[in-house]
Amino acid sequence: MVIVMATRNKEDIDHVVKKVEELGYRAHLIEGVERTVVAAVGDEREKYRLQSLESLPYVEQVFPILKSFKLAGREARVDDTVIEVGNVGIGGGNFTVMAGPCSVESREQIHEVARCVKDAGAQILRGGAYKPRTSPYSFQGMEEEGLQLLKEAGEATGMPVVTEVMTPEQAPIVARYADILQIGARNMQNFGLLKAVGKIDKPVFLKRGLMGTINELLMSAEYVMAEGNPNVILCERGIRTFETETRNTLDLSAVPVIKKLSHLPIFIDPSHGTGHWDYVTPMAKAAVVSGADGLMVEVHPRPEEAFSDGAQSLKPSKFVRMMQEIEPLVSLCGKSLTANAAAVAK
Amino acid sequence: MVIVMATRNKEDIDHVVKKVEELGYRAHLIEGVERTVVAAVGDEREKYRLQSLESLPYVEQVFPILKSFKLAGREARVDDTVIEVGNVGIGGGNFTVMAGPCSVESREQIHEVARCVKDAGAQILRGGAYKPRTSPYSFQGMEEEGLQLLKEAGEATGMPVVTEVMTPEQAPIVARYADILQIGARNMQNFGLLKAVGKIDKPVFLKRGLMGTINELLMSAEYVMAEGNPNVILCERGIRTFETETRNTLDLSAVPVIKKLSHLPIFIDPSHGTGHWDYVTPMAKAAVVSGADGLMVEVHPRPEEAFSDGAQSLKPSKFVRMMQEIEPLVSLCGKSLTANAAAVAK
Amino acid sequence: MVIVMATRNKEDIDHVVKKVEELGYRAHLIEGVERTVVAAVGDEREKYRLQSLESLPYVEQVFPILKSFKLAGREARVDDTVIEVGNVGIGGGNFTVMAGPCSVESREQIHEVARCVKDAGAQILRGGAYKPRTSPYSFQGMEEEGLQLLKEAGEATGMPVVTEVMTPEQAPIVARYADILQIGARNMQNFGLLKAVGKIDKPVFLKRGLMGTINELLMSAEYVMAEGNPNVILCERGIRTFETETRNTLDLSAVPVIKKLSHLPIFIDPSHGTGHWDYVTPMAKAAVVSGADGLMVEVHPRPEEAFSDGAQSLKPSKFVRMMQEIEPLVSLCGKSLTANAAAVAK
Amino acid sequence: MVIVMATRNKEDIDHVVKKVEELGYRAHLIEGVERTVVAAVGDEREKYRLQSLESLPYVEQVFPILKSFKLAGREARVDDTVIEVGNVGIGGGNFTVMAGPCSVESREQIHEVARCVKDAGAQILRGGAYKPRTSPYSFQGMEEEGLQLLKEAGEATGMPVVTEVMTPEQAPIVARYADILQIGARNMQNFGLLKAVGKIDKPVFLKRGLMGTINELLMSAEYVMAEGNPNVILCERGIRTFETETRNTLDLSAVPVIKKLSHLPIFIDPSHGTGHWDYVTPMAKAAVVSGADGLMVEVHPRPEEAFSDGAQSLKPSKFVRMMQEIEPLVSLCGKSLTANAAAVAK
Repeated sequence: MVIVMATRNKEDIDHVVKKVEELGYRAHLIEGVERTVVAAVGDEREKYRLQSLESLPYVEQVFPILKSFKLAGREARVDDTVIEVGNVGIGGGNFTVMAGPCSVESREQIHEVARCVKDAGAQILRGGAYKPRTSPYSFQGMEEEGLQLLKEAGEATGMPVVTEVMTPEQAPIVARYADILQIGARNMQNFGLLKAVGKIDKPVFLKRGLMGTINELLMSAEYVMAEGNPNVILCERGIRTFETETRNTLDLSAVPVIKKLSHLPIFIDPSHGTGHWDYVTPMAKAAVVSGADGLMVEVHPRPEEAFSDGAQSLKPSKFVRMMQEIEPLVSLCGKSLTANAAAVAK
Repeated sequence: MVIVMATRNKEDIDHVVKKVEELGYRAHLIEGVERTVVAAVGDEREKYRLQSLESLPYVEQVFPILKSFKLAGREARVDDTVIEVGNVGIGGGNFTVMAGPCSVESREQIHEVARCVKDAGAQILRGGAYKPRTSPYSFQGMEEEGLQLLKEAGEATGMPVVTEVMTPEQAPIVARYADILQIGARNMQNFGLLKAVGKIDKPVFLKRGLMGTINELLMSAEYVMAEGNPNVILCERGIRTFETETRNTLDLSAVPVIKKLSHLPIFIDPSHGTGHWDYVTPMAKAAVVSGADGLMVEVHPRPEEAFSDGAQSLKPSKFVRMMQEIEPLVSLCGKSLTANAAAVAK
Repeated sequence: MVIVMATRNKEDIDHVVKKVEELGYRAHLIEGVERTVVAAVGDEREKYRLQSLESLPYVEQVFPILKSFKLAGREARVDDTVIEVGNVGIGGGNFTVMAGPCSVESREQIHEVARCVKDAGAQILRGGAYKPRTSPYSFQGMEEEGLQLLKEAGEATGMPVVTEVMTPEQAPIVARYADILQIGARNMQNFGLLKAVGKIDKPVFLKRGLMGTINELLMSAEYVMAEGNPNVILCERGIRTFETETRNTLDLSAVPVIKKLSHLPIFIDPSHGTGHWDYVTPMAKAAVVSGADGLMVEVHPRPEEAFSDGAQSLKPSKFVRMMQEIEPLVSLCGKSLTANAAAVAK
Repeated sequence: MVIVMATRNKEDIDHVVKKVEELGYRAHLIEGVERTVVAAVGDEREKYRLQSLESLPYVEQVFPILKSFKLAGREARVDDTVIEVGNVGIGGGNFTVMAGPCSVESREQIHEVARCVKDAGAQILRGGAYKPRTSPYSFQGMEEEGLQLLKEAGEATGMPVVTEVMTPEQAPIVARYADILQIGARNMQNFGLLKAVGKIDKPVFLKRGLMGTINELLMSAEYVMAEGNPNVILCERGIRTFETETRNTLDLSAVPVIKKLSHLPIFIDPSHGTGHWDYVTPMAKAAVVSGADGLMVEVHPRPEEAFSDGAQSLKPSKFVRMMQEIEPLVSLCGKSLTANAAAVAK
C-alpha cells in the first residue's frame, strides 16, 4: 500500500506510521518534493484494513500496489488451466463453442437446436431453465422441466450441457442435470451463490457483470476457487456504457488483459455482447484471433418467436455459416475446434 | 410497441402485421416519408415477446411506449407510500435518517454508535452482519452474532434496525432480528432474493445497483411487490461511471425522476455515493432539498480502525454536525425529522 | 511517481533507476514482500515522460502521486477566487444566477426573457449566438447578430452577458460583445480555444465535458490560467453515463470535490444536467446547499417553440418559482443573491 | 417522430396535433390501451424543433424514428466509399495500415520509424506535430517543423502522411504538408474545425470521441461532408468507461455497426484503444476479421524514451511481428495489404 500524506506535520506522519505498524506492516517513509509518502510493506492482500486510514484528515490517498487475487492469478499458476467436461477440453489448445437457445422452451425446440448446433461443430449445449428477467411479468423459464429437457437433448447429441443457476438453493438441482454451472452477469457479485457453486464438483462458467471490472471478475473467480473449486471459466459478455447502438459494449480487450493476469480460460458471448444477430459473427471471429478460448452463442430455430432474446439469436443457417467462418481462424491460431479432452491430456 | 420497418415491401409488412396480431395486438400502420411503422396496440407490458420481432431482417427497430412497472408506478397509486416501522414513519411528510457502522464489529462498537446516532436525531440504526465484499479474504461480517448485537443495540436505544440480507436462505434469520431488510446494490437484480423478501412481512430497503438504470430499479421493486410486499424503500447510492475522484457517482437527479414515476419513498446514501467522509454532508444536504425521503449514513467511532469502509464513515462529531445542518433544510421542505408513524397516520 | 516493477531482477531494476535519474529524479527503492517499487522523487508535474517507462516489459505500472494542476489548485491559493463582472461578484459569499434562452432567436425573445429573469433575481444574462449542434442541419445560431441582440438586452436590463465561443477566431468578436466567454462542454479539451481565451481579458465560463474527469476539467482551467487569465468559472453540467431517464447525469458531488481541490468558483447547470424542465428546480436547490457558487439556467418564454433545448427550458413563471425556492437556501448557506462586486471587495 | 402523450385530454391532444401541423408535418393519432401517441409524418431529419414539444406537461416523451445522417448513411450510397491517397487505396478491398510515432520528436526519429514501418508493410506514415495534451505543461509538439520532418520522411519512403489538425486556423498549414487531415478524439464535436476541414480538398481521418456515440460520430462526418468533402475515414479508438485495466475500452463492435449504417471506411486504433503495447497486436488482429478497413498504430524506436504515449507504442520489432500476424487474416478476409489505388479503381 502507498499512503500519500496531505501534510508535512511530523506528528501526523508518526501517527500513520504507528497505525501501519500496528496492523503488522513495516512502514517506509519517502519524503518527496511536494508530498510525503508512507509505503506499507507486507502482504497487502489480506490487510484490507489499511484502506480505512484514508479517513484520517491528514491522509490524501491510500492505494494498493498489488492485485488482490491469488488463486486466479498468473503468479499462482504459470500454465493455462485446462478443464475437462465429458470428452470436451476447455482452455489450452482447444477452442470450444457453447451454443443453444436463450431459454429452453419445449422438447421439440431444444432437440432441434441441439442437433443443429452439434452438426455445425458446437461442443457444448447451452439453454436457460431458470431465467433472470428484468420484469417479473416476463417468461421466467421452464425450471426443473427445462433442466430435464436440456440434459435429454445433450445426451441425445452427445454434448455436455451448461445452464444458469440463480440462487444457492438451486445449485444442487441444477448440478444434478448440468455439466457446467453458469453464473449470470447480474450475479457476478452474488457472493453467497459464488460460495455455493465453489463447493460443488462441477466447472463454473462465470459471466462478467455489466458493471464489473476485470479485477472484480477475477475476485469473483477467487470466491469460487477459495471454496475448493479450481475449474472456473470466465466469460466477457459486454459491459454497460453510454452507447446504445449495441445492447452492451463488448470489451474484447478483456481477452488479452485476462490472459496476462490469469491462467483461467476466457470465453466471449457475442450474442449478449452486441444484442443483435447481425453483429454476432464479426465479433465471434474477432474473439478467436484475440486469443479467447471459446464462445457462447445463442441459436434459435425461429428467433422471431423466441420467448426471450430473439433479436440476438442466430438462426441455424447463420450459425452454420459462423462456424465455417471461424474454423480457419481457429486453425491459424494453432488451436482446434475438434480436440477433445483426451487429446489434450498429458 | 412501435415497430420500425427496414423495408417498404408489402409482403414483409404484412408478415409483421400478422405476427403482431397472432400475439394478441391490434396492428396500426403508419406510412411515413422515409419509413413505415407498425404500432402494436394492446397492453405491452406483458407482451415482451414482441421484442423478438427485431430479429427479422426487415425490421429496423422495436421500441416500447410504456414503462414496464405497474405496482411501483404512479399510475397504480397517486399518493406517496408511507411505511410504518415501529414508531417511525417513512415517506410522506417524514424525513428519516438511518445511521450506523458499515459492519457490526463488536458489542461495544455498535452500542457506542447507536447511542451517538440516536442522540443526534437518527431514527433507525443500520449495521452490516453479512457483508458483501469484493474479496473473499476481506472481513465477511459477524453473521448471526452481528444480527443479535444490532438488535440489542436497537432495543437499548429504541430504534428499529435495518441490515443486509444476501441470500434467500438468510432471509428468515435476518427477518428474525431486523425491522427492515436491506438488499444491497450488488443484489439489485438477484431475482431469487427479491422474490424471497417479497414473501416476508417486513419492509425492504432496496439499493440501486452500480449498473442499474432507474427503470430497472423500479422493476426490481416490482419483483418484491408482485410477491405481496408493498413496503419497498428505494435507495440511490451512486452509480459507476468513469469519474474516479469519488468512489461512485451519486445520481441525485434520480430523486425527482423517481418522485415523478413512482409513489415509493426514495433515500440517498451519501456515504457509498461519494466514498469519502468529506463529501457526505454536502450531499446529505442536497438530498434533503432535492426531495428525498431520507438518508442512510455510515458512522463509526474511529473510522481509521474500521473493518470496512472507514474512508467514507463519519465520526460521531461529524454526524452530529451533519444532523444540525440538515435540520433547517428538512423544515424548509415542510417535512419533519421527528414525526413518528402515529403522527402521519390518518 | 511510483513505478511498480514486474520483476525482482537486479539488472532490470538498475536500468529503471538509471532512467529515472537521467530524467532528473532521485530514485528511491522499496523492496516489498511481493513487489519492488521505485519511487521517483522530484516535481513530477512537469516530468510527464516518466510515464513512458511503463513500456518496459519489466515495469508493471507507473502512477503519479500528485495532481497535475498548479494554478487552479488550492495549494496555489488558499482563498476562494472572487471574480467581478460589471457590478456582479462571482464566488466567495455570492450566489450568482445566469439565466436566459438556449439560443438568441429574435430581438423580442431575448428582451422578453431578459426582463423576466432580471425581475426574478438573475444577475447575468445568458444566450447562445454560435450554437454547437450535433447535426449540421439544425439551427446554428444567429451568430454576430445574436451577439448584438444579447448585448442590447443585457444593457437594457443592466445585466452582464455570457455566451459561447466555439473557435479561436471567433474569440475576438465574441469578446467585443460578451462580458464572460463560455467554453462549451464539447470544447473542454479544445486546447487551441482554451489558449485563445486565456489571452483575452474577460472571465471564462468553462463547462465540464460529457467525458471530462474533474481532474481534466481543472487541467483545462490550467490551460486558460497558464496564458495569463486567472478568472475561470467552472461549471458542472452533467456527464454521460448509461442512465437514459435524464439527458446526462448531473455529478453534483463535483461541487465539494472541486471546493477541496481548487479555489475557482463552481457553477451548476441543471438544465443540461437533467435535460428536462421538471428536474431543474430540485437540482438547482440541491446545487445551492452542496456549496455551489451559482447556477446557469435555461429560460424560454414558450419552450415548446424553442429552436433548441425546449424540453429543458423553464417557462418564466417556473423560473420565478425556482428563484423563490432557492432564496432561503442561499441565505441559510450564508451567501447572498444580491451582493454585488463592490460589496464583496475588500 | 413519435410523440407519446401523458394525457387522454382531447384539448391537449388537439393542441399537440396543431403544433405538429404548424411545423409542417402530418399528424397521425394512435389511441393505445394505456397511451395516446401522435406520430408526426414528414422528413424528421430537418425538423429538430419537434423535440421541443417535450416541454409540454402533457407530453411524456418525443422520440425519433430515423437516424439523422444523410450523406454518411447507407441510404445515400450503397457501395463502400474508396478513397485514393497518392497510390494508396482506402476502403473497399484494401486493408490499410497507418503507423508511426505518437509525436514527431526529431529528424532522426521520424526517418528511423518511417523506414521501419514502410519495410514492415505500412502504407501511410502517421506522426503528431500539434499535440493535444491534457496538461499545458506537457510536450505540445514540434508544430510546423514537425510537419516538415513528417512530410520529408514520408517522401523519403514513398508514403503519404497523416497528422492531426487542432484548430481551424491550423488547417491550411497542416494541409500544405499532410495528405490526410486527422481530427482527434477530443475534437470530434469541434464543429468549427469540422467545417474548416470540410472545405479542404484532402481526406479527413475522423476519430471517435471518448464519449461519442456511433450516431454522433456519423453526424460529425456529416458536418465534413455537408461542406463538400466526401472523403471521410472514421476511426474507433476506444471509448471511456469504468474499466481501468485498459486506458480506454475499444468498442470493436462499432465496426459491424458502422458497416451497416454507413458506406465510409472505418479504422481501428488499437494503441489508444487499449493504452498498452501488450494488447495492441491481439486487438489489431481482431480488427481485421471484424471487417475494419485499416489500422492506425503507434510505433516508436525506443518507447521508454517517448515524449508521449510510450506505454502504448510498439517497438519496431513488435510492429514487424504484428504485420506478419495480420497478413494471413487480411487475405482470409479477401482483402489486400498491398493493393494500391490503381488496382482498386474500376
